[in-house]
Amino acid sequence: MPEVKFRVDQSRLFAEQEVLGHNRWHPDVPPVATVRPGEEFRLECREWFDGAIRNDDSADDVRDCDFTQVHKLSGPIAVEGAEPGDLLMVDIVDLGPVPQEKGPVAGQGWGYTGIFARENGGGFLTDHFPGAYKAVWDFRGQTATSRHIPGVSFVGIAHPGLMGTAPSAELLARWNKREGDLIATNPSRVPPLALPPTAENAVLGSLSGAEFERAAQEAARTAPPRENGGNQDIKNLSRGSRVFYPVFVPGAKLSVGDLHFSQGDGEITFCGAIEMGGYIDLHVDVIKGGMEAYGVETPVFIPGRVEPRYSEYLAFAGLSVTESGEQRYLDSHLAYQRACLNAINYLTKFGYTPEQAYLFLGAAPIEGRFSGVVDIPNSCATVYIPTEVFDFDPRPSAGPPKRVDRGQCAVSSR
Amino acid sequence: MPEVKFRVDQSRLFAEQEVLGHNRWHPDVPPVATVRPGEEFRLECREWFDGAIRNDDSADDVRDCDFTQVHKLSGPIAVEGAEPGDLLMVDIVDLGPVPQEKGPVAGQGWGYTGIFARENGGGFLTDHFPGAYKAVWDFRGQTATSRHIPGVSFVGIAHPGLMGTAPSAELLARWNKREGDLIATNPSRVPPLALPPTAENAVLGSLSGAEFERAAQEAARTAPPRENGGNQDIKNLSRGSRVFYPVFVPGAKLSVGDLHFSQGDGEITFCGAIEMGGYIDLHVDVIKGGMEAYGVETPVFIPGRVEPRYSEYLAFAGLSVTESGEQRYLDSHLAYQRACLNAINYLTKFGYTPEQAYLFLGAAPIEGRFSGVVDIPNSCATVYIPTEVFDFDPRPSAGPPKRVDRGQCAVSSR
Amino acid sequence: MPEVKFRVDQSRLFAEQEVLGHNRWHPDVPPVATVRPGEEFRLECREWFDGAIRNDDSADDVRDCDFTQVHKLSGPIAVEGAEPGDLLMVDIVDLGPVPQEKGPVAGQGWGYTGIFARENGGGFLTDHFPGAYKAVWDFRGQTATSRHIPGVSFVGIAHPGLMGTAPSAELLARWNKREGDLIATNPSRVPPLALPPTAENAVLGSLSGAEFERAAQEAARTAPPRENGGNQDIKNLSRGSRVFYPVFVPGAKLSVGDLHFSQGDGEITFCGAIEMGGYIDLHVDVIKGGMEAYGVETPVFIPGRVEPRYSEYLAFAGLSVTESGEQRYLDSHLAYQRACLNAINYLTKFGYTPEQAYLFLGAAPIEGRFSGVVDIPNSCATVYIPTEVFDFDPRPSAGPPKRVDRGQCAVSSR
Amino acid sequence: MPEVKFRVDQSRLFAEQEVLGHNRWHPDVPPVATVRPGEEFRLECREWFDGAIRNDDSADDVRDCDFTQVHKLSGPIAVEGAEPGDLLMVDIVDLGPVPQEKGPVAGQGWGYTGIFARENGGGFLTDHFPGAYKAVWDFRGQTATSRHIPGVSFVGIAHPGLMGTAPSAELLARWNKREGDLIATNPSRVPPLALPPTAENAVLGSLSGAEFERAAQEAARTAPPRENGGNQDIKNLSRGSRVFYPVFVPGAKLSVGDLHFSQGDGEITFCGAIEMGGYIDLHVDVIKGGMEAYGVETPVFIPGRVEPRYSEYLAFAGLSVTESGEQRYLDSHLAYQRACLNAINYLTKFGYTPEQAYLFLGAAPIEGRFSGVVDIPNSCATVYIPTEVFDFDPRPSAGPPKRVDRGQCAVSSR
Repeated sequence: MPEVKFRVDQSRLFAEQEVLGHNRWHPDVPPVATVRPGEEFRLECREWFDGAIRNDDSADDVRDCDFTQVHKLSGPIAVEGAEPGDLLMVDIVDLGPVPQEKGPVAGQGWGYTGIFARENGGGFLTDHFPGAYKAVWDFRGQTATSRHIPGVSFVGIAHPGLMGTAPSAELLARWNKREGDLIATNPSRVPPLALPPTAENAVLGSLSGAEFERAAQEAARTAPPRENGGNQDIKNLSRGSRVFYPVFVPGAKLSVGDLHFSQGDGEITFCGAIEMGGYIDLHVDVIKGGMEAYGVETPVFIPGRVEPRYSEYLAFAGLSVTESGEQRYLDSHLAYQRACLNAINYLTKFGYTPEQAYLFLGAAPIEGRFSGVVDIPNSCATVYIPTEVFDFDPRPSAGPPKRVDRGQCAVSSR
Repeated sequence: MPEVKFRVDQSRLFAEQEVLGHNRWHPDVPPVATVRPGEEFRLECREWFDGAIRNDDSADDVRDCDFTQVHKLSGPIAVEGAEPGDLLMVDIVDLGPVPQEKGPVAGQGWGYTGIFARENGGGFLTDHFPGAYKAVWDFRGQTATSRHIPGVSFVGIAHPGLMGTAPSAELLARWNKREGDLIATNPSRVPPLALPPTAENAVLGSLSGAEFERAAQEAARTAPPRENGGNQDIKNLSRGSRVFYPVFVPGAKLSVGDLHFSQGDGEITFCGAIEMGGYIDLHVDVIKGGMEAYGVETPVFIPGRVEPRYSEYLAFAGLSVTESGEQRYLDSHLAYQRACLNAINYLTKFGYTPEQAYLFLGAAPIEGRFSGVVDIPNSCATVYIPTEVFDFDPRPSAGPPKRVDRGQCAVSSR
Repeated sequence: MPEVKFRVDQSRLFAEQEVLGHNRWHPDVPPVATVRPGEEFRLECREWFDGAIRNDDSADDVRDCDFTQVHKLSGPIAVEGAEPGDLLMVDIVDLGPVPQEKGPVAGQGWGYTGIFARENGGGFLTDHFPGAYKAVWDFRGQTATSRHIPGVSFVGIAHPGLMGTAPSAELLARWNKREGDLIATNPSRVPPLALPPTAENAVLGSLSGAEFERAAQEAARTAPPRENGGNQDIKNLSRGSRVFYPVFVPGAKLSVGDLHFSQGDGEITFCGAIEMGGYIDLHVDVIKGGMEAYGVETPVFIPGRVEPRYSEYLAFAGLSVTESGEQRYLDSHLAYQRACLNAINYLTKFGYTPEQAYLFLGAAPIEGRFSGVVDIPNSCATVYIPTEVFDFDPRPSAGPPKRVDRGQCAVSSR
Repeated sequence: MPEVKFRVDQSRLFAEQEVLGHNRWHPDVPPVATVRPGEEFRLECREWFDGAIRNDDSADDVRDCDFTQVHKLSGPIAVEGAEPGDLLMVDIVDLGPVPQEKGPVAGQGWGYTGIFARENGGGFLTDHFPGAYKAVWDFRGQTATSRHIPGVSFVGIAHPGLMGTAPSAELLARWNKREGDLIATNPSRVPPLALPPTAENAVLGSLSGAEFERAAQEAARTAPPRENGGNQDIKNLSRGSRVFYPVFVPGAKLSVGDLHFSQGDGEITFCGAIEMGGYIDLHVDVIKGGMEAYGVETPVFIPGRVEPRYSEYLAFAGLSVTESGEQRYLDSHLAYQRACLNAINYLTKFGYTPEQAYLFLGAAPIEGRFSGVVDIPNSCATVYIPTEVFDFDPRPSAGPPKRVDRGQCAVSSR
């Protein structure tokens, strides 16, 4: 087992750990440790909501969660010799849930997928699913099942939802400018267009006093992926993957968090992956001057070899036409929404509630593809569901689908 | 070999065939043949541009092509007993290029990929590639190579770019309304927002006289995918796939065309696939009342088992930020553009021209995925390039990339 | 389409073709054509039994077939510059069945799998299956189904059962010596231990007169694989594979035949593949001095990328203990027999006759593996059946298997 | 984490644990725990040689090891309600190495592969490799590398080498009879034909006194696989696999051991896998009367979905002709030996010693297949090496192979 460079006591809150991580991006967050190129090490991670979501049958916790808290990141780790302009090569050697007895924290034998309420976060299909919902998943080795979504069992595709290097001051300023400009176009939108910096609940490692105050005002929120990687939520960054990150500050300052037991392409319910606390083992190296040599300004990666292997899929297509019939011009985002809605509607014919189907699409290793992006005016997006994860045959057959009562996911009290 | 229900003489133009196909969608195009559920049959197909694109080293033909001509469709085939509300189950039993001596028509041992000029069609990245370009690919079994893009060789993922059932009059009217509304928002845009009906170069099978005149005025152009399937350009509809199409008219009236030897997700250069004439063998069956029973309003499909098998990919991510730095809100289409541009830029470091890299991404079996669609304000899209298709190692390594002169694709004379 | 270097009129017998192939290995068989390194070309092939096996419901033809006839080989093709000691690099660019209307010859839309009678050929399990049996398979694209084995449908793994270079006179002499020595240990065995040279029904291309007489007496039979490749029956030599053959004579003299639409590992019924006539497209090159440089004395190969993709298997193990309970020492051949018998016995619980199950294992893309070869005294062999080829679930479940009447394969009249 | 039903203190010898396991098969070994059908539980395991093999650069430990010690099994676990004639359904939920700091016992961050000396165990190719050799492998997540075999790095295919149910007294007697009969044919052979019962070093759980004495005299050694499963060394029994074992005694009495971090088909060096201590999580259920209902007399299994995914292989064929040129009749075991020797010889051209190559073939996820088993008189066996595990291109190319000094594996002092 590699040396632990960031240790987490899973029985304590993120802000009460011996060594503090961070939940904002800022170049001045001091490193918690320094490693050499070629070194392998372990980071332990809190789940992204710091234990606020419980293993129960109510979605009240999802409804009421506080977004200023997230994400709980482990790091930053400084890499000796890494300089701006280099590429940081990161191998995801291994990762897994909290290796302890089944307990109260996600990762200890279970995880969760949530649908945020429109008033508090929203999601990909928030117009159809304005409420808060939740599914709890039990882990059996690499397999997940849920009492809230009976009839499915799949091998998870574990990965860190969030990993990245620290931005330079210049890059951070650019982020704040462009996101602020966007927010300014509709500041009162619900859900918001973007999340501006806020000192509320900010944690910036060992920064304190005036330095903390200044940095907290300008540090970037962690929700979006950006040029430094960050919350990319790429399900294929699984075990054995190699990622090349741009380096923007001396030492690169790598941080990780938001571990996922599994996720479908898009993480469509926002909290769409199966969230868990756990550990991740990394190996790092540096390609000097790699950004310019390879023309890399956002992360590039090579997926690993142990993704779950399914060979039969049922696929749904969507077009860039709104549900009310309005034609949009090559809007692939809309097309993927329609593809997902088509899949959800289909699954309800077998007895799932729309919320169950939505949660399933967020968590299972589904594939979401840009199929046609040029055939004016319609984009064509497709979503592929592995049929072998169901304990029934979900494919169309000569007769009608056999509808079975499949219960309900966890809902909120209002 | 199954019975040929639509025969094509590849030495003659589409409009000069003994039995005429069609190049518009209209419910009144008479069927060229009728088959029974459970029957298997072959359709022969002209390539989508009817032979206008040549196996040479100039892109003038691509620059000057006439979009009112496309697509050249084989059919419609009526299926006995199929009624509106049913699902038409179509098995893609086999497909392939023109089985003859190497000749002047795409499909006879070769195919092409084109980038349309901005003034005549455009494409996914038309702002970066406003000119016309072309690559000719040679077929060796299921493998493609190109003198215009040296150093790559890949197994194609053959599929029909376009297949679908006829719209009802009501559905056709809806299409025309919504697309007309879109065009009306910017009628003079170049390239246009959508393509309105036009009688110019319309072919509607055996329709003639007043019936032809009326239908040609309202028949839908074939460029976009729609509820009937159509030009979906889904690369995974390969051999062995099963597709379920909604039926909108009695007999379903199935048509096929635009065969592709290979294509990447998105068919990003517009003429991005490797275009070819050829044949396709289909098997059809009917699920009575299947649309409502399964909640299917756009095609659903099950991919086949013989897609090319690659296990190593190099993946590029893109965000929904414009190149000038403007932040867009969860725009996955833009994110995929940025991912593709990142990949193109990367490949130029190994000596390809941007046009070669762009053409390659359109034609090779690359994967394009919606990776994150909820992390406001950034979408994260990813494009996966199989590394094993290159005769060099395209992965980042300790040193800089080895740049080699890789020539040039076919360009236009102005 | 590449140039045809060996043309077959599928309506005529092998011995009545315009250009004669051969059915024995001998260095003196003259080449039918010469190609250059880097050249691609097509060979047309008769099916291995020259049309003697019919598309009907009797196995009398299998019972009565004459083994001195086989195999019907297309070639030899001389390769310019190839010299003894070189490696001949052969790419299997493409292959397929006879591209014509459904007809009387295997390959024209159908193929067959046979079990030879013990008195005439025998097979892997001839003690259990002493009679003659047959299944006829219909081709739908790359998929095979059989009226003689209902309930299964699989994507075939097409390959040439037999391909190889000509032996030198010295190598041929070595073959005849060692095989003659084996036969001498039990000359009257039924089935025989090996097949000695015989002039009966020998075809040696354009050789005639005294040269023919001499060569026919010493030419090797084609049944076994040998150092030159030959009848290796390796199912994974499918489309896109690259094979490196030792060169033993000037020009290498490559020959091909015994095309298979599909086959399981081992081709266990002897005529276990789905036999067909057809065509094969090859590309050749030469590695000078490659035999010594790479230490290659028997063929080496790189499988292609388009093998059918299944992800669920049911696997059976076998040990090197005879059915009567006798312990054999690390006999992997016996262990594989026991594994296959276990699989056959299992499949009969679902209603197949043992003969149907045996024929199925010969023809479908099953995997046969050496699992343990060192754990004295028992070898452990395993056979993997893709479960997705059945139209029912063949896996063990809580209750007993559902036995269904699945008819019978073609049997012989006595 | 499931409840631990067999706990191992990895710092103590097998015979010094608090609860004793066993290293012989006998129906009277008392269960260490009882579980219910549907229950999931964890067993911890010593590595098969109880820590005798060290992480060093000498093979003396391999040379001197005592075979009467092995295998160290965890169990037996009784399953409520399981009766003779039932099938025990065992899901391999998860398994892994010792989850602790790198330490002195195999499994703690490292494992080993050994070649036994001919005088002490031997192996698949013992005539070529009569000495003792060893390679130590370091674990990085699921990936293995070795200082003794530089240039290779592969994802392991973890599995229990040995798992099985207890034999009935009748079955045990049958084993002893048949194996004794074999030994009697050549009692002085080196290595021996089989291993007879011996009380030396026998451990039989909590059995003691006269009961122990009797049982130890008749208990079967664990080396060979048998009808109860046992030491099958099937590499594909990896995470997520489901195995169906015959039940011979009340409670089934399931035992497990000999965990492997990885292994090639055949485990050809005898100690060919990467051996490790660790843990395994199992889920059990019972199919009442399943042996007769499904015709199962030896284990049947369904492999899991997370085997490492390679797509390029270099394959070597072997024939059933001895190296001295003697023809054997359809001897697949010999054919696989020849295939492996061909692969070893090939790898030496790139600079490996034969011992390194042999150890590599034992440990990496190579595939060993019965390719042709009927083409008299030659069997054809094939061994497939994933080319992507090397840090150089191991495929034949136009020039000669680039030979590099790759050092040496661990050897013995005499």
